[in-house]
Amino acid sequence: MKDFTYYTPTEVVFGRRSEERIARLVRRYGGTKVLLHYGGGSAERSGLLASIRSQLAAEGIGCVELGGVVPNPRLSKVREGVALCRAEGVDFLLAVGGGSVIDSAKAIAYGIPYDGDVWDFFAGQAQAEVCIPLGAVVTIPAAGSEMSNGCVITNEEGWQKRGYSSQLARCRFAVMNPERTFTLPPYQTACGVTDILMHTMERYFSPEVDMTLTDAIAEALMRTVIDAAPEVLARPDDYRHRAQIMWAGSLAHNDLTGCGNVGDWATHHLEHELSALFDVAHGAGLAAVWGSWARYVYRTNPARFARFAVNVLHVENDFTDPERTALAGIAAMERFYRSIGMPTSIPELIGRPATEAEIVEMARKCSLDGSSTEGSFRELDRADMEAVYRLANGGN
Amino acid sequence: MKDFTYYTPTEVVFGRRSEERIARLVRRYGGTKVLLHYGGGSAERSGLLASIRSQLAAEGIGCVELGGVVPNPRLSKVREGVALCRAEGVDFLLAVGGGSVIDSAKAIAYGIPYDGDVWDFFAGQAQAEVCIPLGAVVTIPAAGSEMSNGCVITNEEGWQKRGYSSQLARCRFAVMNPERTFTLPPYQTACGVTDILMHTMERYFSPEVDMTLTDAIAEALMRTVIDAAPEVLARPDDYRHRAQIMWAGSLAHNDLTGCGNVGDWATHHLEHELSALFDVAHGAGLAAVWGSWARYVYRTNPARFARFAVNVLHVENDFTDPERTALAGIAAMERFYRSIGMPTSIPELIGRPATEAEIVEMARKCSLDGSSTEGSFRELDRADMEAVYRLANGGN
Repeated sequence: MKDFTYYTPTEVVFGRRSEERIARLVRRYGGTKVLLHYGGGSAERSGLLASIRSQLAAEGIGCVELGGVVPNPRLSKVREGVALCRAEGVDFLLAVGGGSVIDSAKAIAYGIPYDGDVWDFFAGQAQAEVCIPLGAVVTIPAAGSEMSNGCVITNEEGWQKRGYSSQLARCRFAVMNPERTFTLPPYQTACGVTDILMHTMERYFSPEVDMTLTDAIAEALMRTVIDAAPEVLARPDDYRHRAQIMWAGSLAHNDLTGCGNVGDWATHHLEHELSALFDVAHGAGLAAVWGSWARYVYRTNPARFARFAVNVLHVENDFTDPERTALAGIAAMERFYRSIGMPTSIPELIGRPATEAEIVEMARKCSLDGSSTEGSFRELDRADMEAVYRLANGGN
Repeated sequence: MKDFTYYTPTEVVFGRRSEERIARLVRRYGGTKVLLHYGGGSAERSGLLASIRSQLAAEGIGCVELGGVVPNPRLSKVREGVALCRAEGVDFLLAVGGGSVIDSAKAIAYGIPYDGDVWDFFAGQAQAEVCIPLGAVVTIPAAGSEMSNGCVITNEEGWQKRGYSSQLARCRFAVMNPERTFTLPPYQTACGVTDILMHTMERYFSPEVDMTLTDAIAEALMRTVIDAAPEVLARPDDYRHRAQIMWAGSLAHNDLTGCGNVGDWATHHLEHELSALFDVAHGAGLAAVWGSWARYVYRTNPARFARFAVNVLHVENDFTDPERTALAGIAAMERFYRSIGMPTSIPELIGRPATEAEIVEMARKCSLDGSSTEGSFRELDRADMEAVYRLANGGN
């Protein structure tokens, strides 16, 4: 069992009336001039932004705005935010949206007080020492960025998608009203569900597996999400099941489901190259590659995959043949993904097979030109990465 | 489903090497002069206090000491601590021990900056507005005070045991090394296990039961603790299972297992009168009264108790008769308590039946002279409380 640190200082305010408290939360955490940061038009159309603006004005909190954050949030927008916040004297960032907006806000928060270029953190050339405080109003449950210590940004020069993590950018608060997720399109809902599950699975498939409480909590979370997903796809305004998914999104990525484990994260990194190259939704990319990763690595610890199959997916345990149980679990997970409209291969993801050159290029970037490996459940080198991409592409 | 706030800012440092970081954590959270607060001699004998003293000295952090905290920690000791800390200019409290020591430290932390008497908070006559920061080095997993917002103090005048809760006294950090729990006597281990389970059960038996993620996590935690308890009683130095219990102790009382629910807490309040009157261990008192509480209230929602029976205690579900399943679950829980050496009645707890006068007096105090009720799963008035005590005393 790995020693661990568990640090989740974010004050979560969850429920139907949570949004009434946004401006007071900003005030409590020291904000006097806010950057209101958001994505497209849905937060405007729903009236959420208008409500926040009037709340902030009533509290006497200044506000400048920067919208237009896109999925796989861009470095150029982050740089724009840094410049704007410096010019306007912003002292608090308020992200309204999902993981892309929150991640963009985190990157801006690092960038404002930093002397150099903010990409330095993502390129591994600098460590942040300070960070502007931020809070989140979550409208898309998926990335869990509202309670996580990480953020992922895409640099348009070379389409590099890279993450940076530190405790500094943990949100001071996260406001979560499941009603806001009623209007999410089915595909986006399913992508979120996939991301939430994968955040848990990346931690669950660990080379160290003796923290049984962590396992049991992770399995409980995965079962709950798998159970809730078809309910909200059938009835988008099902508050109860929307709430399960929303809360699971935070707990799946605030480290609770990994205490004592060593995370794997190979699937995430394989996916980052897919979404960097093809600009696909992160959740869909994860679903497209996970089954192939699983079939490639499961023999490292078939018992672990058998446990996953039985405890998460209710697969009948073949006690005489853990490998058979393991494979049945992988197949059941892929059936679940397909049942919620997610792809389970690269051709389903991008509408055609990837070319061999694209596969080679993704593995090259993922392995940093072959200098680095990914994964801990089983360590994958550049050749392994190519092999997983080929499997996901329909090969053997 | 109830709207909820989830706020767990405590930095948990968990594992074999966690204790090396104590002084650096004090420093990081602003401590320059510490009150080292502890109980009896075990922390001294184990060398833990000596290690902390030398760590603090090496960091240049001043230190005064106050030991002698007893189970059901006393107001007199709290007052002594407040006076000492004021005289010595202490700016950080370091509690080394279990819930009693941490609760005593929290009360001192409230008391130092307060103009009146610290009991005012517990008597409901004042709300704390500030609080000295504190950290915990946990050696007894049970109360979960290291991550909770509450503390319970016993006033020797009238033997009143009362709690006070606010976010101010959440520990800044909690250092947890499961190895420290190897030397806990079996009875104390079992009392801790009982307290951990009851913190979860108090939240699980809720009048609102539509937060399925919370349910699933609570059940996962209870199953894990019930599974680990006999292992550590058989092999006290079983790190893996000690770790499950220790981490469960924190998660059981940091609000995770109650998100969206309305807590019941009747069993806790009934027990507080038992331990105030008879000075018994809190965990043992909970085990002594829970089964009687459960049989008194289960008809309010037999399905809930049936779910508990099946999902936590692996009782066979009688689909045709939820009440039968419910009662089988209560009996199974009591068998578990007895298997770890816990009492399941008042005579087993105190060595004789309580007198009728004692029962009447406990119910009088618990109901604040009949002016107040306890419980939410089923609300208990003074007569109900007497009835539960009588059941636990061996009556009908």
